[in-house]
Amino acid sequence: MLRRSLFKSAGLLAGAAAFGSAVPAASAADAKVFVPSEKTPLLLNFNENSLGMSAKAKAAVADAVNGAFRYPDALREELQEEIAKTLGVKMENVSLGNGSSETIQAVVHAVAEKARRAGSPVQLIVPDPTFGCAEGYADAVGMAVVKVPLTGPKLAFDLDAMKKAARDFKGISLVYACNPNNPTATVTPSALLEAWVKEAGPDVVFLFDEAYAEFVTDPAFVSAVELVKAGVPNVVVARTFSKIFAMAGLRIGYAVAVKDTCSAVDGFASVDNINAAGAAAGIASLRDKVFIEKSKSSVELSRAIVVKALTELGLEYLPSQTNFIFHKIKGDHKLYKSRMAESHVFVGREFPPAVGWNRLTLGTPEEMKAFVKVLKDFRAKGWI
Amino acid sequence: MLRRSLFKSAGLLAGAAAFGSAVPAASAADAKVFVPSEKTPLLLNFNENSLGMSAKAKAAVADAVNGAFRYPDALREELQEEIAKTLGVKMENVSLGNGSSETIQAVVHAVAEKARRAGSPVQLIVPDPTFGCAEGYADAVGMAVVKVPLTGPKLAFDLDAMKKAARDFKGISLVYACNPNNPTATVTPSALLEAWVKEAGPDVVFLFDEAYAEFVTDPAFVSAVELVKAGVPNVVVARTFSKIFAMAGLRIGYAVAVKDTCSAVDGFASVDNINAAGAAAGIASLRDKVFIEKSKSSVELSRAIVVKALTELGLEYLPSQTNFIFHKIKGDHKLYKSRMAESHVFVGREFPPAVGWNRLTLGTPEEMKAFVKVLKDFRAKGWI
Repeated sequence: MLRRSLFKSAGLLAGAAAFGSAVPAASAADAKVFVPSEKTPLLLNFNENSLGMSAKAKAAVADAVNGAFRYPDALREELQEEIAKTLGVKMENVSLGNGSSETIQAVVHAVAEKARRAGSPVQLIVPDPTFGCAEGYADAVGMAVVKVPLTGPKLAFDLDAMKKAARDFKGISLVYACNPNNPTATVTPSALLEAWVKEAGPDVVFLFDEAYAEFVTDPAFVSAVELVKAGVPNVVVARTFSKIFAMAGLRIGYAVAVKDTCSAVDGFASVDNINAAGAAAGIASLRDKVFIEKSKSSVELSRAIVVKALTELGLEYLPSQTNFIFHKIKGDHKLYKSRMAESHVFVGREFPPAVGWNRLTLGTPEEMKAFVKVLKDFRAKGWI
Repeated sequence: MLRRSLFKSAGLLAGAAAFGSAVPAASAADAKVFVPSEKTPLLLNFNENSLGMSAKAKAAVADAVNGAFRYPDALREELQEEIAKTLGVKMENVSLGNGSSETIQAVVHAVAEKARRAGSPVQLIVPDPTFGCAEGYADAVGMAVVKVPLTGPKLAFDLDAMKKAARDFKGISLVYACNPNNPTATVTPSALLEAWVKEAGPDVVFLFDEAYAEFVTDPAFVSAVELVKAGVPNVVVARTFSKIFAMAGLRIGYAVAVKDTCSAVDGFASVDNINAAGAAAGIASLRDKVFIEKSKSSVELSRAIVVKALTELGLEYLPSQTNFIFHKIKGDHKLYKSRMAESHVFVGREFPPAVGWNRLTLGTPEEMKAFVKVLKDFRAKGWI
């Protein structure tokens, strides 16, 4: 539990447990603004997509469950094929993961093994703060972790410092770059990353985590899948069905890489790692273009509601390209969180060294209206 | 795909793909003997439980799907608790896996890492033939694999040779012992394994794969969970929901071990490895005692049908304690398999060095009657 608690603190988990497997809080809302309660708390803490899964995905699960006494090979292949088709790559370029968290694990362990066989030192370079998964997996195999603090008022990747960390190291460097980054919700221009990939030698392996790519509208972002298509061998792209497709519970993610790299990663994924419910839901979700648009537009509407309120309240925020937003709060973060929890609103945790900021998941527009109401109440009370 | 094809040959997979996510073949049967066809083949090749999942488990999935946009932490904890309660251990003794295949991977990788940190050589000792998963994972981390052939007419573990392999090795040995063994379906008396555990030093780690434990009636088998309860630190027991609970598609397995060992294994399981559909189905299945009894009695009935036919035909078989049976065939195995496939019956593969034997999954009684009819037709044709 200790490792999982890196990502999900005990207090927040209690909120989730109370909520159980219930329906989205928004569905409890009537025409007026939804009011969070103990029974229907607002869970804005884990970047989940509270629209809920596509109706077509739900129907696909209901169908798949009748065949779920069989191993999921057929569905697995169909999912792999559908992903490849969607991205314009071959099936051999897609390694399925039990959520992108397993994919990230497989990449970290594959790179560690590559280094071991070459008798080479190995390190993981991560911006700080970022999504903590890669770091946790590196610890498990004794891989050194170099944390490079975000820089400037916009909390950007310090690419010069990250490059230097790789250049100065005698061995293999794995660079974990979440783009857009979690928790900042901001994009690192792809041109900058691509320039680094081009100048880096084969001893630098890039893992681009694009969990939130589908929400991005900023043209400065181009998926690193394009690098894979161009045949770059030292790039792996991790993607997930947890965000745009609202499937966090069904655990489907994948890696995209050139054939040999993809095979190496797949060698560290567990056999039969894709469950039939997730595969069926994933296939249906990829084909449900209406849901994808709905998912995007819902987040955009929710973001506009929150941005308007933050602007009115004079609370700084970073330009979000994801289904969450990183914004400043005034006063003590712990106190803010606990007061929010008292109002049955569970916001994200603090991500030191980015102190004074809160990561807020963008739920449905109805949920965000409810959040704004609580936030404005806090201002009226002089708490923020 | 190469690694997965170790377990599932391309030809068999084609059979599975044709079957898709359809309902159990048996449900297509009327009161007369079911006749396999291209559309409703008999899949007796992967030790799946063709009863299909418990109705309560299906209902639990239908419920869980509405909350599957959330991460599955609450369901995960509930499942872990229910398993612990069922076995009479603590939650800290249970590490959940994405099927026992992930659990086996986590154990292999954890032992490899332990050896690496100790600067010690490490090897995997497996009986041969056995379930191939551990071996595949060992290959990925460059762990040497020592295969000890089964011995005698009953294809028993050669425990003396396995012990010697561990004793003669200067380093850490991981012993993979599937009990009952796959593909032989036979039990190794627990007293013999326990004696080895007691005399072995801490440099021998035992992984007991008890995927089929729930089907066993032979009193010579006692679950190795008892060793964990007694506090033995170098024992890990792997279990699965794929067999007795007919949940192969939903990917739930687990390890049972003393606290520290369990944590070490859990450190190599991926974060959020349990999907909500599988967790919900798993919890419901553990509580559905009627289904468990039905699952056992169905296999016993199916086994009796097959044993009677094998006896009549004078085909040798090993005493099955699982939902499959290992029996001899006459003539060329490849030819037998392809002829069966032509009759729309997919039987298991050959497991060299156990040549001349076939592993046959025990489907529903209706399915096994259909199999027996085909087998007897083969005899009439002089094929077996």
